[in-house]
Amino acid sequence: MLREMEISRAIIEAYTGELLESLSLDVAIVGAGPSGMVAGYYLAKNGAKVAIFEKKLSIGGGIWGGAMGFNKIVVQEEAREILDEFGITYKPFGKGLYVADAIETATTIASKAVKAGVKIFNMVEVEDLVVKNDRVAGIVINWTPVLMTGLHVDPLTVEAKFVIDSTGHGAQISQHLVKRGLIEVPGEGPMWAEKGEELTVEHTREIFLGLYVTGMAANAIAGAPRMGPIFGGMFLSGRKAAFEILEKLR
Amino acid sequence: MLREMEISRAIIEAYTGELLESLSLDVAIVGAGPSGMVAGYYLAKNGAKVAIFEKKLSIGGGIWGGAMGFNKIVVQEEAREILDEFGITYKPFGKGLYVADAIETATTIASKAVKAGVKIFNMVEVEDLVVKNDRVAGIVINWTPVLMTGLHVDPLTVEAKFVIDSTGHGAQISQHLVKRGLIEVPGEGPMWAEKGEELTVEHTREIFLGLYVTGMAANAIAGAPRMGPIFGGMFLSGRKAAFEILEKLR
Amino acid sequence: MLREMEISRAIIEAYTGELLESLSLDVAIVGAGPSGMVAGYYLAKNGAKVAIFEKKLSIGGGIWGGAMGFNKIVVQEEAREILDEFGITYKPFGKGLYVADAIETATTIASKAVKAGVKIFNMVEVEDLVVKNDRVAGIVINWTPVLMTGLHVDPLTVEAKFVIDSTGHGAQISQHLVKRGLIEVPGEGPMWAEKGEELTVEHTREIFLGLYVTGMAANAIAGAPRMGPIFGGMFLSGRKAAFEILEKLR
Amino acid sequence: MLREMEISRAIIEAYTGELLESLSLDVAIVGAGPSGMVAGYYLAKNGAKVAIFEKKLSIGGGIWGGAMGFNKIVVQEEAREILDEFGITYKPFGKGLYVADAIETATTIASKAVKAGVKIFNMVEVEDLVVKNDRVAGIVINWTPVLMTGLHVDPLTVEAKFVIDSTGHGAQISQHLVKRGLIEVPGEGPMWAEKGEELTVEHTREIFLGLYVTGMAANAIAGAPRMGPIFGGMFLSGRKAAFEILEKLR
Amino acid sequence: MLREMEISRAIIEAYTGELLESLSLDVAIVGAGPSGMVAGYYLAKNGAKVAIFEKKLSIGGGIWGGAMGFNKIVVQEEAREILDEFGITYKPFGKGLYVADAIETATTIASKAVKAGVKIFNMVEVEDLVVKNDRVAGIVINWTPVLMTGLHVDPLTVEAKFVIDSTGHGAQISQHLVKRGLIEVPGEGPMWAEKGEELTVEHTREIFLGLYVTGMAANAIAGAPRMGPIFGGMFLSGRKAAFEILEKLR
Amino acid sequence: MLREMEISRAIIEAYTGELLESLSLDVAIVGAGPSGMVAGYYLAKNGAKVAIFEKKLSIGGGIWGGAMGFNKIVVQEEAREILDEFGITYKPFGKGLYVADAIETATTIASKAVKAGVKIFNMVEVEDLVVKNDRVAGIVINWTPVLMTGLHVDPLTVEAKFVIDSTGHGAQISQHLVKRGLIEVPGEGPMWAEKGEELTVEHTREIFLGLYVTGMAANAIAGAPRMGPIFGGMFLSGRKAAFEILEKLR
Amino acid sequence: MLREMEISRAIIEAYTGELLESLSLDVAIVGAGPSGMVAGYYLAKNGAKVAIFEKKLSIGGGIWGGAMGFNKIVVQEEAREILDEFGITYKPFGKGLYVADAIETATTIASKAVKAGVKIFNMVEVEDLVVKNDRVAGIVINWTPVLMTGLHVDPLTVEAKFVIDSTGHGAQISQHLVKRGLIEVPGEGPMWAEKGEELTVEHTREIFLGLYVTGMAANAIAGAPRMGPIFGGMFLSGRKAAFEILEKLR
Amino acid sequence: MLREMEISRAIIEAYTGELLESLSLDVAIVGAGPSGMVAGYYLAKNGAKVAIFEKKLSIGGGIWGGAMGFNKIVVQEEAREILDEFGITYKPFGKGLYVADAIETATTIASKAVKAGVKIFNMVEVEDLVVKNDRVAGIVINWTPVLMTGLHVDPLTVEAKFVIDSTGHGAQISQHLVKRGLIEVPGEGPMWAEKGEELTVEHTREIFLGLYVTGMAANAIAGAPRMGPIFGGMFLSGRKAAFEILEKLR
Repeated sequence: MLREMEISRAIIEAYTGELLESLSLDVAIVGAGPSGMVAGYYLAKNGAKVAIFEKKLSIGGGIWGGAMGFNKIVVQEEAREILDEFGITYKPFGKGLYVADAIETATTIASKAVKAGVKIFNMVEVEDLVVKNDRVAGIVINWTPVLMTGLHVDPLTVEAKFVIDSTGHGAQISQHLVKRGLIEVPGEGPMWAEKGEELTVEHTREIFLGLYVTGMAANAIAGAPRMGPIFGGMFLSGRKAAFEILEKLR
Repeated sequence: MLREMEISRAIIEAYTGELLESLSLDVAIVGAGPSGMVAGYYLAKNGAKVAIFEKKLSIGGGIWGGAMGFNKIVVQEEAREILDEFGITYKPFGKGLYVADAIETATTIASKAVKAGVKIFNMVEVEDLVVKNDRVAGIVINWTPVLMTGLHVDPLTVEAKFVIDSTGHGAQISQHLVKRGLIEVPGEGPMWAEKGEELTVEHTREIFLGLYVTGMAANAIAGAPRMGPIFGGMFLSGRKAAFEILEKLR
Repeated sequence: MLREMEISRAIIEAYTGELLESLSLDVAIVGAGPSGMVAGYYLAKNGAKVAIFEKKLSIGGGIWGGAMGFNKIVVQEEAREILDEFGITYKPFGKGLYVADAIETATTIASKAVKAGVKIFNMVEVEDLVVKNDRVAGIVINWTPVLMTGLHVDPLTVEAKFVIDSTGHGAQISQHLVKRGLIEVPGEGPMWAEKGEELTVEHTREIFLGLYVTGMAANAIAGAPRMGPIFGGMFLSGRKAAFEILEKLR
Repeated sequence: MLREMEISRAIIEAYTGELLESLSLDVAIVGAGPSGMVAGYYLAKNGAKVAIFEKKLSIGGGIWGGAMGFNKIVVQEEAREILDEFGITYKPFGKGLYVADAIETATTIASKAVKAGVKIFNMVEVEDLVVKNDRVAGIVINWTPVLMTGLHVDPLTVEAKFVIDSTGHGAQISQHLVKRGLIEVPGEGPMWAEKGEELTVEHTREIFLGLYVTGMAANAIAGAPRMGPIFGGMFLSGRKAAFEILEKLR
Repeated sequence: MLREMEISRAIIEAYTGELLESLSLDVAIVGAGPSGMVAGYYLAKNGAKVAIFEKKLSIGGGIWGGAMGFNKIVVQEEAREILDEFGITYKPFGKGLYVADAIETATTIASKAVKAGVKIFNMVEVEDLVVKNDRVAGIVINWTPVLMTGLHVDPLTVEAKFVIDSTGHGAQISQHLVKRGLIEVPGEGPMWAEKGEELTVEHTREIFLGLYVTGMAANAIAGAPRMGPIFGGMFLSGRKAAFEILEKLR
Repeated sequence: MLREMEISRAIIEAYTGELLESLSLDVAIVGAGPSGMVAGYYLAKNGAKVAIFEKKLSIGGGIWGGAMGFNKIVVQEEAREILDEFGITYKPFGKGLYVADAIETATTIASKAVKAGVKIFNMVEVEDLVVKNDRVAGIVINWTPVLMTGLHVDPLTVEAKFVIDSTGHGAQISQHLVKRGLIEVPGEGPMWAEKGEELTVEHTREIFLGLYVTGMAANAIAGAPRMGPIFGGMFLSGRKAAFEILEKLR
Repeated sequence: MLREMEISRAIIEAYTGELLESLSLDVAIVGAGPSGMVAGYYLAKNGAKVAIFEKKLSIGGGIWGGAMGFNKIVVQEEAREILDEFGITYKPFGKGLYVADAIETATTIASKAVKAGVKIFNMVEVEDLVVKNDRVAGIVINWTPVLMTGLHVDPLTVEAKFVIDSTGHGAQISQHLVKRGLIEVPGEGPMWAEKGEELTVEHTREIFLGLYVTGMAANAIAGAPRMGPIFGGMFLSGRKAAFEILEKLR
Repeated sequence: MLREMEISRAIIEAYTGELLESLSLDVAIVGAGPSGMVAGYYLAKNGAKVAIFEKKLSIGGGIWGGAMGFNKIVVQEEAREILDEFGITYKPFGKGLYVADAIETATTIASKAVKAGVKIFNMVEVEDLVVKNDRVAGIVINWTPVLMTGLHVDPLTVEAKFVIDSTGHGAQISQHLVKRGLIEVPGEGPMWAEKGEELTVEHTREIFLGLYVTGMAANAIAGAPRMGPIFGGMFLSGRKAAFEILEKLR
């Protein structure tokens, strides 16, 4: 006989166990968009204890809609090997461009990241950082709907050796340091796909002790151009951050 | 050199080609939740021309949040083979129950469905049905944000031999027939997990010529109990609808 | 040294333990207003396993504002002994009326109820009932902000031998049976303080197997008059329900 | 027999063809108000490849309401010849002033502009500019309802040799350069009809390589006075921009 | 010298003159969509005193967005002559279908209607009907923004021998009779383009003494199917109503 | 027989006549609060051509609610004679204070001001100033609901020799000069009733050629303290502005 | 020296005294529109203890805006003597019609009513009725902003021998009896000024023991036609109710 | 017999008496959160005349939700004696930490504070300060719902020798001095529980003559770190402020 209480118990215990386990992490990634999930995948695959905190219910960030809702994305030659790593289907279009399905891309990366060992906490928003002795040392989390409704409820804290801000255009996590005057963020430049793609990877770095930026957040922090619905730079940025952090964790 | 216009052209042509291709379908599924995606997977795998229309940007329906945001789901013994079919990881909990990760479940099903040949049109809402000579003959679609903003913009039409309403509790597609007095929908009953699970599969059927209901929509149509965060019935319902329709398509 | 992670762990473990403990209850009370808290107090004091589920962050229901924000309340002679039981200060006004401070009343009752053993889960909304074999057998809960924001997240279930609907004017819990046609609710009548006070206690009863109504919900169910900022009937109603249920639990 | 699918196909193919055709333009005009449509008319009539992108569903900008909803507009002597060019009816009022119907004015200009070869993409908002090597080189577009609803969907890009900002008071396109510190916009001055009319035409110019401003946007950029419901300056500004750009395109 | 006050005076006098002139009409048309404007055109061209009252600032109703924002519309053979009458450009698509630009269509019809003598009062909503001795005898108007903001402001009244409800799907004007129990409106049926087109013209008629319905409002009143982005029926419906009314006016 | 059209005609003609008459004024007062209405009364009584433009439907500004909705106001000895001038009832309270009814005060002042010859245009918002050769020369007006709904509709212009900003705390009219850098507004100080009352009158002056400030706007412009529900300063400020302007008009 | 505390004390004491005084009334009028204020005036002038409860801050109801914001109103011959009674200025227009200023009308009636002894409690909403032994015996009041914000705050009660519902189109007070099935309200009919004016006075009556309706509420209750911006019927209705009640009070 | 009017009278008189009594205070505390209520308790217990003004209906501030709605709080060793003073139940967790129930904590402190003599005015917002001769001399209050709805209603004033700003993160009362340039508020730093706890007590002080800050407001004023769901610092801060003020009052 199927008892409601057993279903409740199974879910609460499984989730709580994973949450308690994740109170102290090697890497806390904020934002389950393309660069964050790719970073998480490579970190977990190489043995780091890593969790992604995503404020929406669903993962995927800006991938789902392709461009203007035409749900296809473009990837350039340099990043084709990452499509291959995840087993995403693609078709060539002109010289050095590949078209993939937005939905297949978003779900396949997430599916593989979780299987690789990444814990994803969705509907959880990072409302601040822990900073001790001038080093980012963790994140401050709350339920997204609590923040959306403006209810007056205190957050919880998660410790982490490194935090990755992969929150996109807004670089929302880095903003917590900006508003205290600890770093400056010029905001992303106008569109220029080619430059934007190059610079995303170049600007992927540790901008404050313990805090990395990836993807569009990296460009926003550096004032580099936006690049539109081409995702190679996002993937390469996530992978670069993962390997730099793995190096430091050793 | 990466030219913005080429990226634009690649996306528009890939999407438009797929959309024109999908103007005449074997099966149009409305709602990319668990029962709809499972139905789509088995239909495409067995050669049907099938597309899913999902009003949100992301797929997954009610899976993401597990229960109260504790992102785990429960599946009972009867449906374990479907978890195996998709390759979703699970752990046993008590007698005959299995716990799986909500995010892995949602993304893995979607990833496999697309690879099996299902086209998913997200951010597209079905605002009405085509009914000819007392048979459902297609769907009437529009961009979700157009409908959300109340802009006065006409829809497009897609022809389909069968339509599946897998829109959950609201049974929104069936409502278009309800408001014209063509069928009646009592709405789902109070919670009773065991009965709900059994009845979901039992009530999965063709409620009007050309229109199937699956998952929670099937229970809502029949006035059967809701069942909470247990998903076996959803999966089995989707599979049942797929095989019944495949039979009729032959 | 004060470690953030330890604070997080202490809170998660304390809460989760209490929640798992409360998945199977003698009595689940919905609404932490005057009648619900008084019922909880007498139930817990007499050994029942009881929890209150309150959709707001704060307890107290309609007590806080007194009348038009003039934060005083009135209690008549018949209920004075309950003020004494809780140790609430009051002053006589005219014949047979007593005035008490609204804030002292709300907080003192809650403070004493928790000390007596009542668990209160706030920011938790009851979105449906469990009904098995024509008997209310539990409640279906979710985070209030999840419901306020309309996020698509499944609920959890709590089993209970009895459920008390003490949600006030709306009788919101009983409405879940109304909309399935299982009971009828006429809604409360116009103001008539004296009649309303009498009838509140009279109408406090088991309206469906396993479901009690108290306070304004009792009047709403019976179509009796409202009574305004006089609270004696609320207190007496809560106490009556508690003793009737204690009797049945034996 | 009228088949829904044929209607869908006709519309998708006609629109997509025109959109793909417009991915590389001589001139992209933003805003289908009076100055933008007049500019488009003269550009198309003289052989330029030109499209207007308008964020609303309807064209016409601020013409429709006349003044306070009294739907008449005033045009002064200097611009009478443009009314004649489009065949708009008018009546003299006092010395050197002419009154025309706002609706006839808006629709007649648009009708003639489209017939002259201007493509108008309505419900499409320009959310950013393409800037390469310090020259505006195109626009970044999205569906207006996508932006209104805040959905996270990437835009598409259109290349253009020249962009005209005819978005009115807000000079919204120029703002994309302002927020990156590339130009400065003082905002329009208080009302002074005579000065405003003169200066609108004077300030119509290329404010950044590849970017023209017309109409109220020209005044806003220059800090010149507003002028109210008199439209001569708007028309003359549009025509001036058209002829300057035609010169440079040769 | 350009004096602000002269511009104000010119506009107030021109508008007020036209409004006073229109307080007593042959025909008051509500809704400046395709069927209403076509009706107005033929009525004015044949000497009737006619005004259109449109609640939005812009005219055109549902034409602008084509289908899903792909701004093209389809017209079938039977209505081609009306495209010719207005001088709208079109291209054949398959057998008996023609594709036209949505913006050219909307603006050209409006431009020609005004030139033919139709007065259009935009931003004016019809909030009720005048009914005397069981005959519709006029309309009750107010500024749209007054109604949108819920300000408590009384309306004005316009007398008319005939009123045409061309308000589309909602048949909003006819609803004023429905809510008083004077007529019944079943609401439009599901999509079926061919039947819908036929029936639109058939259902164009005087549904209550003094009140005509055209276009989608005609179908909604009769419970006939919707037809999507094909506009021939709209045009033919407007023309039919015009000629029937002209007959009765004589 | 009562004909609707005659009622419409009577109202349109009476209003339009008054509006055309008011396109060129001696004094345009913005805001029908206590200081503005008192100023208008003394100006009209002494022969000036004066109109008040009030954005709400009702006049009275902050008088209606007394303090916290307790609808009484206080006036000090110095301003008692103005209560007498208008014939407002009052009662003494302590030394040198008088209590009056808020509703009697607001309506009696307005009633007397209109009878004295002031035209009041309500539901009309001043959205900008006319400034010519560094002198305020008029106001730019629109319907309030047009501005509230954000509809894109141009304003009308009214010429005036003097403009009075009596818009209260926000000094909204003066803000139009502040945002162009023509004057500075520090904003009002914290509460200090005595100082505030004194300074209101002292700061009533011509702050820019052609622009007077009265009442709370005068204090806001000067950074003086606010004073709460005591109205003597308001009345005296309005009278002072009236007499200074009358002097200059001669 | 002006002390803030003295101002506070003066206002609280004056208001509270009047409120306590008004807890038991001869007549409680709900709605300070034209018919309610005229009724109040005649009742107070003839010695009844009467108060008006108005949910807005300002009195006047639908008078302020005239018609479409053209702030003039029309009164017919039959009601001219009431204009004279209050001393309101008017001008003849055609045969038997008079035009008055809307603002002068609203404020003069209110000013005279208060001077005659009517207490007006503004920003106070009547949220229910007291009904004892099948007779309306009072009203249930709350602060309007409390109700607007949905705060959970109990109301206060005021006893009255008679209640007048002068809340206009909605007949909001009578609705409290409608929703309990005690009376029926058909809602007002379409516009017909002449019939509406006649019937308003005819339908002014005691619709339930202790409850009168006046003005538009009287027509709504009886299903009679609306009449637009003509106010004679309103005035006559208020006067009729006053005299009938005075008769019964004796 | 229970008479509604007597209930109304009892409440109005009890409240008004207390409000008039509180127009001149020793200490006005703004915000009924943990530090404010603890401060009030110690002040009242030691004979000061003290009232708390709370903008919500309920007291308790950020206590209710524990962390992320897990309604438990943590208190460290240093503050255990305050839990004992109030009689709040707690359990040890690890070294030097204690876990208490959030609801028991909030309600017990409030209950004891009121019994000690603190008056609490809820639903009352402090919208400004009284400042005379460079010393804070009182507060300016209004009904919260009046401010929420933006109604234009003047406030009342309360005199106080000292004001405590215990409004939490926003330090809302101190902001009234910040916006006049009288003090500066850097805003709180990122999370660091240990430092935050220490500094809260250290920063509890008189920041402007007559104005104290406590709790999170003290940290916000000093730019110190936030500390999450640990409440020892809050309690100690409230007690410290109380004793410093008691000293000065002597």
